[in-house]
Amino acid sequence: MWGGRFAEGPSAIMREINASIPFDKALWRQDIAASRAHVAMLAACDIVTADDAQTILDGLERVSGEYEANGVPEDWDLEDIHMTTESRLAELIGPVAGRLHTARSRNDQVATDFRLWVREAMDDVDAGLAALQDALVTQAEAHAGSIMPGFTHLQTAQPVTLGHHLMAYYEMMRRDRSRFADARARMNESPLGSAALAGTGFPIDREMTAQALGFDAPTRNSLDAVSDRDFAIDFLQAAAQCSLHLSRLAEEFVIWASQPFGFVRMADSLSTGSSIMPQKKNPDAAELVRGHAGRIVGCVTALMVTMKGLPLAYSKDMQDDKPPVFEAAQLLGLSIAAMTGMVAESTFRTERMRQAAELGYATATDLADWLVRAANIPFREAHHITGAAVKLAESRGIALDALPLDDLQAIDARIDERVYAALSVEASVAARASYGGTAPDQVRARVAEARAQLEAER
Amino acid sequence: MWGGRFAEGPSAIMREINASIPFDKALWRQDIAASRAHVAMLAACDIVTADDAQTILDGLERVSGEYEANGVPEDWDLEDIHMTTESRLAELIGPVAGRLHTARSRNDQVATDFRLWVREAMDDVDAGLAALQDALVTQAEAHAGSIMPGFTHLQTAQPVTLGHHLMAYYEMMRRDRSRFADARARMNESPLGSAALAGTGFPIDREMTAQALGFDAPTRNSLDAVSDRDFAIDFLQAAAQCSLHLSRLAEEFVIWASQPFGFVRMADSLSTGSSIMPQKKNPDAAELVRGHAGRIVGCVTALMVTMKGLPLAYSKDMQDDKPPVFEAAQLLGLSIAAMTGMVAESTFRTERMRQAAELGYATATDLADWLVRAANIPFREAHHITGAAVKLAESRGIALDALPLDDLQAIDARIDERVYAALSVEASVAARASYGGTAPDQVRARVAEARAQLEAER
Amino acid sequence: MWGGRFAEGPSAIMREINASIPFDKALWRQDIAASRAHVAMLAACDIVTADDAQTILDGLERVSGEYEANGVPEDWDLEDIHMTTESRLAELIGPVAGRLHTARSRNDQVATDFRLWVREAMDDVDAGLAALQDALVTQAEAHAGSIMPGFTHLQTAQPVTLGHHLMAYYEMMRRDRSRFADARARMNESPLGSAALAGTGFPIDREMTAQALGFDAPTRNSLDAVSDRDFAIDFLQAAAQCSLHLSRLAEEFVIWASQPFGFVRMADSLSTGSSIMPQKKNPDAAELVRGHAGRIVGCVTALMVTMKGLPLAYSKDMQDDKPPVFEAAQLLGLSIAAMTGMVAESTFRTERMRQAAELGYATATDLADWLVRAANIPFREAHHITGAAVKLAESRGIALDALPLDDLQAIDARIDERVYAALSVEASVAARASYGGTAPDQVRARVAEARAQLEAER
Amino acid sequence: MWGGRFAEGPSAIMREINASIPFDKALWRQDIAASRAHVAMLAACDIVTADDAQTILDGLERVSGEYEANGVPEDWDLEDIHMTTESRLAELIGPVAGRLHTARSRNDQVATDFRLWVREAMDDVDAGLAALQDALVTQAEAHAGSIMPGFTHLQTAQPVTLGHHLMAYYEMMRRDRSRFADARARMNESPLGSAALAGTGFPIDREMTAQALGFDAPTRNSLDAVSDRDFAIDFLQAAAQCSLHLSRLAEEFVIWASQPFGFVRMADSLSTGSSIMPQKKNPDAAELVRGHAGRIVGCVTALMVTMKGLPLAYSKDMQDDKPPVFEAAQLLGLSIAAMTGMVAESTFRTERMRQAAELGYATATDLADWLVRAANIPFREAHHITGAAVKLAESRGIALDALPLDDLQAIDARIDERVYAALSVEASVAARASYGGTAPDQVRARVAEARAQLEAER
Repeated sequence: MWGGRFAEGPSAIMREINASIPFDKALWRQDIAASRAHVAMLAACDIVTADDAQTILDGLERVSGEYEANGVPEDWDLEDIHMTTESRLAELIGPVAGRLHTARSRNDQVATDFRLWVREAMDDVDAGLAALQDALVTQAEAHAGSIMPGFTHLQTAQPVTLGHHLMAYYEMMRRDRSRFADARARMNESPLGSAALAGTGFPIDREMTAQALGFDAPTRNSLDAVSDRDFAIDFLQAAAQCSLHLSRLAEEFVIWASQPFGFVRMADSLSTGSSIMPQKKNPDAAELVRGHAGRIVGCVTALMVTMKGLPLAYSKDMQDDKPPVFEAAQLLGLSIAAMTGMVAESTFRTERMRQAAELGYATATDLADWLVRAANIPFREAHHITGAAVKLAESRGIALDALPLDDLQAIDARIDERVYAALSVEASVAARASYGGTAPDQVRARVAEARAQLEAER
Repeated sequence: MWGGRFAEGPSAIMREINASIPFDKALWRQDIAASRAHVAMLAACDIVTADDAQTILDGLERVSGEYEANGVPEDWDLEDIHMTTESRLAELIGPVAGRLHTARSRNDQVATDFRLWVREAMDDVDAGLAALQDALVTQAEAHAGSIMPGFTHLQTAQPVTLGHHLMAYYEMMRRDRSRFADARARMNESPLGSAALAGTGFPIDREMTAQALGFDAPTRNSLDAVSDRDFAIDFLQAAAQCSLHLSRLAEEFVIWASQPFGFVRMADSLSTGSSIMPQKKNPDAAELVRGHAGRIVGCVTALMVTMKGLPLAYSKDMQDDKPPVFEAAQLLGLSIAAMTGMVAESTFRTERMRQAAELGYATATDLADWLVRAANIPFREAHHITGAAVKLAESRGIALDALPLDDLQAIDARIDERVYAALSVEASVAARASYGGTAPDQVRARVAEARAQLEAER
Repeated sequence: MWGGRFAEGPSAIMREINASIPFDKALWRQDIAASRAHVAMLAACDIVTADDAQTILDGLERVSGEYEANGVPEDWDLEDIHMTTESRLAELIGPVAGRLHTARSRNDQVATDFRLWVREAMDDVDAGLAALQDALVTQAEAHAGSIMPGFTHLQTAQPVTLGHHLMAYYEMMRRDRSRFADARARMNESPLGSAALAGTGFPIDREMTAQALGFDAPTRNSLDAVSDRDFAIDFLQAAAQCSLHLSRLAEEFVIWASQPFGFVRMADSLSTGSSIMPQKKNPDAAELVRGHAGRIVGCVTALMVTMKGLPLAYSKDMQDDKPPVFEAAQLLGLSIAAMTGMVAESTFRTERMRQAAELGYATATDLADWLVRAANIPFREAHHITGAAVKLAESRGIALDALPLDDLQAIDARIDERVYAALSVEASVAARASYGGTAPDQVRARVAEARAQLEAER
Repeated sequence: MWGGRFAEGPSAIMREINASIPFDKALWRQDIAASRAHVAMLAACDIVTADDAQTILDGLERVSGEYEANGVPEDWDLEDIHMTTESRLAELIGPVAGRLHTARSRNDQVATDFRLWVREAMDDVDAGLAALQDALVTQAEAHAGSIMPGFTHLQTAQPVTLGHHLMAYYEMMRRDRSRFADARARMNESPLGSAALAGTGFPIDREMTAQALGFDAPTRNSLDAVSDRDFAIDFLQAAAQCSLHLSRLAEEFVIWASQPFGFVRMADSLSTGSSIMPQKKNPDAAELVRGHAGRIVGCVTALMVTMKGLPLAYSKDMQDDKPPVFEAAQLLGLSIAAMTGMVAESTFRTERMRQAAELGYATATDLADWLVRAANIPFREAHHITGAAVKLAESRGIALDALPLDDLQAIDARIDERVYAALSVEASVAARASYGGTAPDQVRARVAEARAQLEAER
């Protein structure tokens, strides 16, 4: 019955299912930092003596050094990083180690450690996104005037500039960063001192530990503090949205790199070749970024499902909070770095982009707009006239601006020669100078603002 | 081949799959508001004449009145709310209706309408959550001193007060409201004027429409503005977190209402009876709130999956943004209202709660803490002594504070009679007076702050 | 406090959250069928008299006729379809209506009705998928020899035939159908007679009702029977996989329809044009199918989350089983129909496909394979030689088979003139005649088998 | 710009994001088995010589021995398990190693390896579930007559037996096993020989490799074979449903183990105590099983999202198929083992269960049923009478069967003394002898069938 790796029966199963040390050892720095803050506070509040506190601090220093040098030992019987550290501390300094656990519990301890970890992960993501924004702005500036087809439904719609297109992603990253910033501000409260669930009878100073650990304040309700994993879900939700944005950019790179498009030549460093098909440069990194979006959405789903319907206070289900967060943080960090490399190092084949923009009557809207503006025709009627013109051009296999004026006037007598100025792709993009539009001057203005913003944040 | 309801073949399929009017008619107020703002701006910028603008405004007024009176007609051939309104407008005022569509497109129009709708939904949720907080605070104040067992792992752990327990949910709702507020601030930019994807050549004033519609500013990139559904995902993610919190409270009501617990008597108005089992009062509303969390998590998953890997700019997939948002908003609104009713109208059976708290040696931690404080024993050793005391009490079938002093001293000589003051459930909760702890005074202080906060927001 | 639409307070909230009639009225046919089977059995087992049974059957007939003619009335106070029908029946035939509810409960009743509905939905999907397979096979046969580029990483890899490509989707639909068939077989057991949760004391014949309703057998455990929604999740999971397959085909149509690819001309009936951009034929239907995959994944997530952690037996959360199933069934049916239309009615631009296949040295692998076969060179070495040949051809801007023999022999002396027979795209696809390979004869053989299979199933 | 761990720039990012060896080394046994089958076939088909084949087989034997002894080396530059093995083989046997890769590609190789792995995982799950069924049947037999309250809405509804309750889970596991069996049958086809995407020109025998690897047949379409991950999603979907069932059982253990219920005493080996609260036995294993359901639902979501919208054939996104499958298999295996232990080793406190069943007028339905049967009263009327009786009993604080006959007859004259035989909990469960009902004889019959079934499968 207990065959296979559980031959010992339930106790072997329990040891394996219960042990979180294989993954929560990633929290060791946070755990030691929180212990240091806690014991310093206990001493300041006369709950432990200054001598005992110093002994504990020295011991923690030694444990920390050992972890740094040799990694955290993974003994399943010690269950988690908290017991692992406490047990080692007791070996090193004896029974006084037991005083460290005064006025705290593993419940508030893990809540504190994990918050610290997530807060740092948020800061890392923010730095990565700033680098990606930098890369986008640099390429956008270089290509503020490079014309490409703007697509809707992946059909050529109107000409836009590559710089404008890249700045759309700048905006997405801006929202991503604001999402992480909001989450960081919301979570920056210290659960330490909430103890098992009800607070503690020791005269502790929660403000002091909060401050020592860089929190804005202590949390206001001890039951909530040990039961709350909103901060982890906030991180995962922001990560999911960010990964969706990256998946969109990745999709575009994959399509643009295909031979029929040929809009981009990927950097060798971020693609794989094939020894027999030298023409083939597989956009592996882009595909992996796109795939990772799936896994990150999986991570946020996991934690939401796990938290559903849990009564207060701490339940052991909550131990499943860490694997999805660790996984998502790793995948997102890698995805951001990969997209930064892709944006910075790709060669955009601007002639092919421009050529694609010129095909497909992409300036038909410009003809319609001209009719409204110059001839004061209601827009819906202007659309109709334009349709006829495009149909004629198409039947002759020529571009819209290659139609003779006579033919245009035969369609509608109100058309005159000024119309030709509106029908080139350059004229088209230059005309769209409304705020946030694709006109190169608009793009350059947005780039300048973005640069200033990035500069200001440094 | 085209049997069943698609006997006409592909065109019948297309009409059905393509039509969004069955659901996007919910946007009619927003659509008309945005059209009014747009045409007023076109007139101010001399793009349409003041007369035409007035004609259009009057026409919109009439359309609006018709919708108000008779609902929005659902003609699949008109596809969506935008075409439905425009077509009716043309019937009412003739070809001048066509001028309304100058310098805009359905792409920026729907992005604007939907933002307005989501913004209003956020405001509704916020008002609902404030009412729920009110109900929580009221009950928490009434029960600041009502003792109940605090659970971890659903095992009796330490005594807490019901007020403290309810205030944990106040904190969750506080975070929920801050999440919606953050999302609202992030999304409050106007896409109107981004046109199809590239901006427009008309000399429009996007600031003016933004202001008229209550937006803080126009969006900065037209490609992003028509491709972005972050605001909808933000709403759904915040809704999902909120629904998870409500599912936890609902789970507690279901468990508390079970006969073995008997902690709560649900309001008749929010439960169903059974004609043959009068003792049975099914907590239907709580169960539905818990179930709705599943559906809301489904909604956010839906939109995240739909947005994955979409190239810029608008793709028709994005039409699938509305059903999950409408569904989640409806379910969440109902869930918040139901939980508000449940909190406000339930009768808490405080004697049964208190009785449950007294069982199970819930004050064992207090004995250990006393040993640390009064006898200066390291915490881990104090735990050991406590274990022996509880074992003895258990073997005699009596409470901890019913053990004679002799017996306690036989376990550890450092125990003296002062210990009894620590072993009642009242003493236990009163002792946990650390900031955010369960002591009634702490709870009352938090309640007072919460009241002041809610008052200030009114 | 109870502002807005809940001004009446909790009872108004309860009426709205509790009522399932707005969606479960879709079960009316199943509900009446199950009632008919139940009452016939009650009579056969002498639990009700033959006369009473006949009165009830006649009454049900009248209710059914009313529903057919006027729809199901939506009275929230009657909560659900079961109470709605029972109440109407009582109005029509008086107190004898009460006997219908002997030996059953709403719990087994809804489980039965919903199974019947899902079973029918499975049959509908199966019929739809068979039609899609038909369309795929027809096009695959017509294009068994039409050459197109085979992609990996969306990079041209090796030539394949369009027929082969379409038959890949035939295989996916085959698996989808087998998945629905497995689910149907697993769920085809009758819960009727399980009563509220524990079975019944009446001497009922569950075999009889099972048979009358087309079930293979009665379920074996009454607690399970009323608590089980596996069949609904099975349906949703199969629907999700099917929708993912359709999303892949839809993605290909979107890419193929883009101007740079130009592989397909979509049917007018399944795309939308633009009055001003006649070149633009937006693949709306394909995009909506792709988007619907997101919503269907959302539906299966919803029900999985809802069912998580529910104790036995029936809980009201389970009322949330129907909306996701109804939504997914509707979206999937529409998606299958749309893809059937797209496959059947699209025009494949085979010259452009062939041209794309010829670009990009797609037959480089064939050169390597030839070296292995004809010159007995280890594969990895053959790859190396091929790389040199492609590099040379690329440097001259010519195709591989345009390289003179001298040049090839300079790269490797073992190459002789027989090699040229291997380097055309026709030779390449013809050569891949391994079982399941892309050689036209292989494709035709698979098509013939598929046709026979589809014929046999009719 | 390339700070942190990517200081080397894009190539360092690429090495990390591209390497799958950290996880796909788990496939080494499958990879070597497939290579052995492949090379044996190449020799049988005269594609490689018998001598070369033997050299390769010997080399694979050595590599296998090395992996067995020292694990698989993790060199990121070799990317994956396939290149790692091939590279080591070349070191050991020289260039002839290159012949192994004739007529195959990494695309069909990984598809084959991964199928073999998933097939084995399915077999492991099936064995685990059989053991869990065994444990359920054993306890169900022991408790076929142990009475407990049957709940709906977690409210006491009617008495059932514990054996009946446990057998409900037997049924769920039965469906789970059938789901895995269906998935196994569907996926048991060999992709080997599909090569990169188009099949191969070598005269291979795919039947032979299929047979050697235990597959029923080769796949029918090479493009599908390398692009298909249905088998992985099938596994994950079945795993998700199974984990939901386990989460329900886990939830029941958590609730039953709480002090107010006290229905179960968990095994020491599967719970954790607390040194200071000996009464506390935390049901950690049950909570972790419940939590794992969340993560497994996350895994299936991840892969579904990743596969959405991928064009044919292989895309690198599909490399993200393995982590969710490996994670889910590990979590599910552990969860099944833990629940088996919990079922087998828990002590059910049957007196407390019985006592809870007797409270709450759980036999009220029996009174109503008796009225219908013995006095021929329509069911709805019988309900009404019962309501009055329960109300009376409740007002006196006594059980239903403690009401004197006079009082009952005052409520309805048709009641006579035979009624008392229907009102005990024993009578209640004994009466529910309909097929699948809770009567002990029914439960024993189902247990006997289940035992026979499990025996037959051995």
